[in-house]
This record gives sequence, structure tokens and C-alpha cells, in this order.
Amino acid sequence: MKKCLLIFSGGLDSTTCLFWALDYYDEVHTITFDYHQRHVIEKKMALETIKLAKSIKQKDIDYFEFNIDLSKIGASALTDFSINVPKNRNIDNQIPITYVPFRNGIFLAISVAYAEKLDISNIIGGWNVLDYSGYPDCRPDFLESFRQAATLGTKIGQTKPFNIIAPLIGLKKSEIIKLGKKHNADYSYAYSCYEGNEIPCGQCDSCILRAKGFEEAGFVDDYMVRLATSSKETKSHP
Amino acid sequence: MKKCLLIFSGGLDSTTCLFWALDYYDEVHTITFDYHQRHVIEKKMALETIKLAKSIKQKDIDYFEFNIDLSKIGASALTDFSINVPKNRNIDNQIPITYVPFRNGIFLAISVAYAEKLDISNIIGGWNVLDYSGYPDCRPDFLESFRQAATLGTKIGQTKPFNIIAPLIGLKKSEIIKLGKKHNADYSYAYSCYEGNEIPCGQCDSCILRAKGFEEAGFVDDYMVRLATSSKETKSHP
Repeated sequence: MKKCLLIFSGGLDSTTCLFWALDYYDEVHTITFDYHQRHVIEKKMALETIKLAKSIKQKDIDYFEFNIDLSKIGASALTDFSINVPKNRNIDNQIPITYVPFRNGIFLAISVAYAEKLDISNIIGGWNVLDYSGYPDCRPDFLESFRQAATLGTKIGQTKPFNIIAPLIGLKKSEIIKLGKKHNADYSYAYSCYEGNEIPCGQCDSCILRAKGFEEAGFVDDYMVRLATSSKETKSHP
Repeated sequence: MKKCLLIFSGGLDSTTCLFWALDYYDEVHTITFDYHQRHVIEKKMALETIKLAKSIKQKDIDYFEFNIDLSKIGASALTDFSINVPKNRNIDNQIPITYVPFRNGIFLAISVAYAEKLDISNIIGGWNVLDYSGYPDCRPDFLESFRQAATLGTKIGQTKPFNIIAPLIGLKKSEIIKLGKKHNADYSYAYSCYEGNEIPCGQCDSCILRAKGFEEAGFVDDYMVRLATSSKETKSHP
């Protein structure tokens, strides 16, 4: 019986991981964080994607939401709303203001605790380092180091080492989308925009990388199709 | 200008660290966690100890409280109130039911984020491994591993490695108390009991280790003196 815990934001990367994990694990548990992020809409979308995935894969998915108010720490455009999300910037390897201090460290630590409770030692996440914004807490050496800390610092780790599984780590955004499509991913509710409005801004790092990824992969973005369809439906039924 | 962030529970160990740090650092910041613990009284006590320390050391202390509801995860007698705190048990090296899954990993991760915001790379905590209850997330190899993860996974870590400083790590409880007394620690409000009542139960691991520590160190416990004095005062002014 293979069990895993997926850190599931409801974005494109973790949606890909969800469909991937459903093909490889007997039991898939998810944890979603409400960290008082600007784009808290992703949480609502995450639930919609889980519904979709259950129906497409005909498999149960356990969902757990954890609330942690990182706006109390702030220091990021995603958790301090007085800081603007940068638009149309040249995405280089500098760490941008959308970096949330040690966010993945915090999410991983809480996930390790929850996994320990569930007697799970496989933790999956959508971290990747090619088409990304230079966040240090997405890199393989960080993940390996955290894996060791989790193994050393838990009761479960004394008998069973933790695995931190990053199926997307070396993939470009277009390859992530292709991998998802291979596993029948439906991105209709996979939300990416940092601004948090239902209609994506199209100009933040996240929107730019996503659009480029879909174009390169040669797929249309399910999310945009859904938006277009629902807007057409609204218009035809005034 | 030497700055540090102290993970301050308000217990005996972190109170020792507070008085120690005030002698070695120019600027002392503290972070206290309300994790919906059974003994949430320690939070109130922590504030009293900070007041005392400010007055004894004539130095400012920055205080930050962070709320994270670990009862949502539970799986410990300290966060799931349906599980009883073990009493008068033989304290061996088995991990007891008062172990909170990866608590120090979670506290450290949040502290790293807060330290990064304050541009601090020295994090101090009262972890120790001699007279303790066998918690895996107190051990030196865990702390070293976490230090590496914090350095690799943060923006600040790219230019300045984190230090995780554990001044008590190799000390017995009696030596911790002696170290504190050398730095003029006042333990009148340093709270230890797992049960969370103002009058300590005297039978949980934490009470037992504390009493043994004071006895071996040859000091009276300031907390008990304060309780006795205030109870006498109450009696004489009915």
C-alpha cells in the first residue's frame, strides 16, 4: 500500500503532481495552506481541481487545509498587500519581492508533522527550478537538506527515512504541462496569478511563465478555455 | 552590532537562554508560539519573564507572538486534550506521548522566516539532550541539518549562513539552572508543567526533571517561592 502526502496549492505545478501521484500511489493525501496570501482564491480553486481529479481518476483524495497567517511576518508582495506585485519584468535569477521568507521550509515542516501523524513518509511537491522565479526554497540541495532534518527530527524518522519527492524538479514549464497531460491533468481550475483575481493579470511572473509554457507545449490553457466558455454562457443567458 | 532571535517558550530552558543572550548580544528579539498547547499559560508567563529580564538587565527585549494551531494536527498529549499527560513515569529514552510531531521543525521554520525579515542570522533555542524526554527534534544532528536547510532555502542564506545556537545542548538540568543563575536569571515566572495549571502538577516529566534539577543545583525554585509568597500574602490579606 503506497501512501503519499502532496503539498497542494492548487496551482499548475501541484495540479500536475496531483494527477501524477494518483497514477503511482494507492492513497493520496493532500495538504493545502491558507497563509493569508494575496491569491487566496487558489484555495477555492484547489477544491475544484480535487473534485475534477476524483472524477477523472475515479479515486478518493484526502484533503486537509491548514491555516497559518504569514502576513504577520510579511516581507513579500504575496503576504504584504502594501507591496505591489511586479509586472512584465525581465525574469532573471535574482530573487524577486514575491519571495515569501522560507515559505517552503514552513510548509514542509507542517507537512512533515501531518505526514508523521498519518504514518506517511513520502512527501510530494511541485518544486521546480528551470522556468521559475529564483526562489531558493525550491532547489534540490534545500530539499535534500530538509529531508535529512525531517528524518532526524521526527519519531517516524527514527525507523523510516522521509522521502521528499519532486517529480517536476528538472522540468521546464512546457515539460511540466506535457507530463500533466500524459497523466490526464485538467488545468481548468489550476490557478497561477499572483494578483488573486479570477481573471489572471497576464503580467506577473507566474502568468508569464504559464503562458509561455502552454505555448511551448502546444496545448491550450484549460483555465482560459473555461473562463472563455463561462463568459460566453453568461452572455448567451443574460 | 550583534543581533539574535530567541525562540522563547517562557519555560526554564528558554528563560536561561534569555538571560544568557542578554549578556552576549546587543539586540535580543524573541518569538513565542501560541500553538494551542495544553499549557498555554506559559505564554502569559513568558511576558512576565520578559518584564523581569528587562528590569534586571536594563535592556530592551523585542517580543513577537506567533499563532499556529497545532491541535489541528494533534497526535500529542500537549495538543490533543483527549490524551492524558503521563504521570510519574520512568523517564527513559523512548519518545513519549508528549512529543508534538516535528514541533521544533515547525517553530524553527517560522523563526527562520521571521529572522530573515529582521535581517538576523543567529537563532537561539533552549534545546538540550541530557535531562530530557527523548524528543528527536532537540538533538544536535537535527539542529545542524536544519541549519543547512535554512541557509540553502532563504534569500538571506545566500550571502550569510544561519547559525543555530543551542547554549544548553550538552547540559544537565542542574547545569542549565546554574548557568542561568550565573547570568542572574529569575525563574519566578518560568513555567514548565505540561498540565497548564498555575500550580505545577509535580508528576509530569517536565515537573520531575525541573525539581531534580533545582535540587542537584542547590537552588530553590523561584517559581515555587513566588507561589508560596503570593499564597501567604493572600492568606494574610483575606
